[in-house]
Amino acid sequence: MYRTHTCGELRISDVGKSVTLSGWVQRTRKLGGMTFVDLRDRYGITQIVADGSQNAFMQEQLNELGREYVIQIQGIVIERESKNKHNPTGEIEITAHTITILNKAQLPPFTIEDDTDGGEEMRMKYRYLDIRRNPIRSNLELRHRMAQAIRKYLDTQGFLEIETPVLIGSTPEGARDFVVPSRVWPGQFYALPQSPQLFKQLLMVGGIDKYFQIVKCFRDEDLRADRQPEFTQIDCEMSFVEQQDIIAMFEGLAKFIFTEAKGVTFEGDFPQMTYADAMKYYGCDKPDIRFGMTIYELTTLMKGKDFKVIDDAQYVGAIVAPNCAAYTRKEIDELTEWVKRPQIGAKGLMYIKYNEDGTIKSSIDKFYSSQDLEQLCQECEAHAGDLLLIISGDQATTLNALCELRLELGNRLGFRPKDVFAPLWVVDFPLFEWDEESQRLYAKHHPFTSPKPEDIPLLDTNPQAVRANAYDFVVNGSEIGGGSIRIHNSELQAKMFSLLGFTPEQAQAQFGFLMGAFTYGAPPHGGLAFGFDRFVTILSGADSIRDVIAFPKNNAAKDLMAECPTEISQAQLEELCLQIRKK
Amino acid sequence: MYRTHTCGELRISDVGKSVTLSGWVQRTRKLGGMTFVDLRDRYGITQIVADGSQNAFMQEQLNELGREYVIQIQGIVIERESKNKHNPTGEIEITAHTITILNKAQLPPFTIEDDTDGGEEMRMKYRYLDIRRNPIRSNLELRHRMAQAIRKYLDTQGFLEIETPVLIGSTPEGARDFVVPSRVWPGQFYALPQSPQLFKQLLMVGGIDKYFQIVKCFRDEDLRADRQPEFTQIDCEMSFVEQQDIIAMFEGLAKFIFTEAKGVTFEGDFPQMTYADAMKYYGCDKPDIRFGMTIYELTTLMKGKDFKVIDDAQYVGAIVAPNCAAYTRKEIDELTEWVKRPQIGAKGLMYIKYNEDGTIKSSIDKFYSSQDLEQLCQECEAHAGDLLLIISGDQATTLNALCELRLELGNRLGFRPKDVFAPLWVVDFPLFEWDEESQRLYAKHHPFTSPKPEDIPLLDTNPQAVRANAYDFVVNGSEIGGGSIRIHNSELQAKMFSLLGFTPEQAQAQFGFLMGAFTYGAPPHGGLAFGFDRFVTILSGADSIRDVIAFPKNNAAKDLMAECPTEISQAQLEELCLQIRKK
Repeated sequence: MYRTHTCGELRISDVGKSVTLSGWVQRTRKLGGMTFVDLRDRYGITQIVADGSQNAFMQEQLNELGREYVIQIQGIVIERESKNKHNPTGEIEITAHTITILNKAQLPPFTIEDDTDGGEEMRMKYRYLDIRRNPIRSNLELRHRMAQAIRKYLDTQGFLEIETPVLIGSTPEGARDFVVPSRVWPGQFYALPQSPQLFKQLLMVGGIDKYFQIVKCFRDEDLRADRQPEFTQIDCEMSFVEQQDIIAMFEGLAKFIFTEAKGVTFEGDFPQMTYADAMKYYGCDKPDIRFGMTIYELTTLMKGKDFKVIDDAQYVGAIVAPNCAAYTRKEIDELTEWVKRPQIGAKGLMYIKYNEDGTIKSSIDKFYSSQDLEQLCQECEAHAGDLLLIISGDQATTLNALCELRLELGNRLGFRPKDVFAPLWVVDFPLFEWDEESQRLYAKHHPFTSPKPEDIPLLDTNPQAVRANAYDFVVNGSEIGGGSIRIHNSELQAKMFSLLGFTPEQAQAQFGFLMGAFTYGAPPHGGLAFGFDRFVTILSGADSIRDVIAFPKNNAAKDLMAECPTEISQAQLEELCLQIRKK
Repeated sequence: MYRTHTCGELRISDVGKSVTLSGWVQRTRKLGGMTFVDLRDRYGITQIVADGSQNAFMQEQLNELGREYVIQIQGIVIERESKNKHNPTGEIEITAHTITILNKAQLPPFTIEDDTDGGEEMRMKYRYLDIRRNPIRSNLELRHRMAQAIRKYLDTQGFLEIETPVLIGSTPEGARDFVVPSRVWPGQFYALPQSPQLFKQLLMVGGIDKYFQIVKCFRDEDLRADRQPEFTQIDCEMSFVEQQDIIAMFEGLAKFIFTEAKGVTFEGDFPQMTYADAMKYYGCDKPDIRFGMTIYELTTLMKGKDFKVIDDAQYVGAIVAPNCAAYTRKEIDELTEWVKRPQIGAKGLMYIKYNEDGTIKSSIDKFYSSQDLEQLCQECEAHAGDLLLIISGDQATTLNALCELRLELGNRLGFRPKDVFAPLWVVDFPLFEWDEESQRLYAKHHPFTSPKPEDIPLLDTNPQAVRANAYDFVVNGSEIGGGSIRIHNSELQAKMFSLLGFTPEQAQAQFGFLMGAFTYGAPPHGGLAFGFDRFVTILSGADSIRDVIAFPKNNAAKDLMAECPTEISQAQLEELCLQIRKK
């Protein structure tokens, strides 16, 4: 037997016991005639001690231990002279009687400490060492607790967890599908699912009624920060439900997760905001509502003063930075440069300082009288001491710039603490979005999303105005989940495909077996999927989803530890009837 | 709101309530002036009724419903005149007041009944309809309950569920790996894991201590009955453990699953049998111990009687079929043909009938005196009325033939009831097996399996005699799980690779990052994986793992519903820098 106890469980009440512990050497310290070893495992750290005056041989053995050696210690639990209140085992230590070195260790390439000296590349390459560090380990523990809570809640609510296939069919439009050549069927391919969407809808046709799965999905995406080629979804679907049934069910789930995994509770329902309001007041469809600083549109109010920048603009909007009227010229210049970066894309930044003493100072007082400026302050509900920041331009870019500026100032002003959680449902998404380039409509959510019944007449007259029974779950400005009520009527589905520019043949080729299934008695149904990696990231306070994944890939989709992807052998290629062609 | 209740929950105590139900039309029946509809959902069947004399319009609407129509019914719960004790809702019915057809249905291609008229191909193609049938749905429900029980138990025991990557590196020997071309890194490939073996060992190096995962694994295997290209493992690993710690932990898990999912309990520990005994007494390493009929070796006893078939044989063995002495010549001939089939491969079958009256009759009495035959009966502990069946030949084939014959007779004699479960640990597997063809040793389990410490000296002198710290979990003759204590010492691992014929360079290329990890402080560790599909199959009593998988592939690795694998477009191939070459 390797151990009687873990390194996290011995207490003052265990004093006198003969125990055996196993673990890793966190550090050794010589102090006078004594040597101390911090022995670490997943559960904690226990101090081992050898007194040279009583057991010189043991002290020598402890002195020779290297960092991260794996050892087994047998000894007696004694009370410590100088107790460590910060460590649950800090009232005791173990006098070592026998020691066995279970495995030696090379010196790790970075320190196994909360604040390590290892850079991200190094930590990814030696991920098995990184996992020994508290921050990563506790993220994985949180992820485990969240997964257990999710299953407990959904099981209680009558959901069945059902595994859908990972080897599925590729679709003609599946440009971002990973494909998998079949050895048994040369020249043919499976695809890895970007989501189990079709299968969960088929489960509803199959009468499963309530389905969920915590499931890996895959996207061979152009590289983007904080995306992973494989990611985990909490995928759910229900039959005989309307939008509010789904929102109620998964709001319950979200609350349960927050409580079970973080001890956070919420009073009352989560707020709901229409997509239109989110865009109008926050400039995006995933507002961070931990703080105010909403957007005020000033287009009408500011036009007509012979100020070309404004008069030519499609849209003018402002946000109010509270108590920032004292910002220096330099600070405002820096913000101006910030919004002019290509990622943000604003042409410039105007300001109105509503000083503490009631006076007003502005970058645009050439065009606006002090009365005008006062009116603008009033319109934006600014108070003395506040700073109005104004951007103009085309509507989409300007709203986006105001959104980003608001979030940046929220960070700088400390309005976005990581331990405050502000969940929000964004509802009434548009059914379609128009793509200028290809001059066609795309499904905003996906082609199975149901329009709001009252908007169905608009499908023929003004499809862009049609609202969908679609909803997103947003926490702290991060889209954590989304879903929709699906179309269960074949005719409506056919109309949808036609509006999306599919010929009946294309629709058949791509979604044939789902449409076939719908002719055999599909129930009304809808669902939702949470991005599990992002949900854990938000709750953990981690900076990147890579910090909540045991073995993540880097932003170039490479696993630096396992060194993949790689070339494969000619023999393997031949078995698959494949040949690499140079680009 | 689509429903106030499910179709499985209304009882006599609900009489008088106004309710709304939604579901599928199982059947409609006209009986005199009344029409009855069985309305079905996942939870049960509730009878809907319309009395033509009171509501002719409603009766007409019910009469027009087709099978599998999806409808919503609003009505009043009333007590039934003729109650159905077999249905939990059988004491009530609903007088329909309003009906809404939510979706019409084509006539399904097979009946949605427990005993359907659909063949397997048809049921696979329309799997979403097959899932509506009780047998499939209840298998999926059992699978869900088992998965929940597994997580509950392992969570309580301190295991962390950690997701390992699905896109991993291919290994030079990974002939049965599915590979996944990367679009971002043209000419490079990921592979899908055949098991998370390396990653779970790395998690132990990372100090995770107790890991589990219910996880999809993949094997691009030549087609075999009852194998799936993707399958699900309950994958587990623990640190600082010896074989008995692992067996104790997962015996606890197995008992918990049996109890939670099936209400089956076991007294005392599961039996353990050495690999050597399993081969000797049952002719295979996964004995079905629901019944006796073990194998008796008769090689020495039967030789030397001038019977060439026996004298030339490497091995002679027998099983005793209890109370089968009265088998006719025809019956025995049929058994003889059965063991001579190529799948079994015996050359023939000898018998000794130990008749009820004490007389003995045999197919080999030309060579053996009645005293000899009596002695053979005695040796095999046969009783009057029993039938001895003897096979001779080379040892491996003969033991296998006796094993198969034993199982076949067990089936015929009713000794293998599906609702009796006989779990068993098979232990002390050999570390290696010798491959005649390639004239080299292979790892019986895998190359990381630890030899028994007392057998380590044999590595140099007689490696085939070395026993491993490896164990299998067997239920009713089916291998449900297996695992081993791993090697955590780099030198022993290097020796293992050399015995397996790897050069250090090959070992480095294939397992480099694991061996590297082992130099940074690997703890002693070991684990086990259960085949989840097979575990569910055993508990469900299903005939095939396809019956416990929501969307299985057929034995040719094809999904008949989603129609994959398929060819992909030239554009997709070009993006991946791939070209198909004709064989």
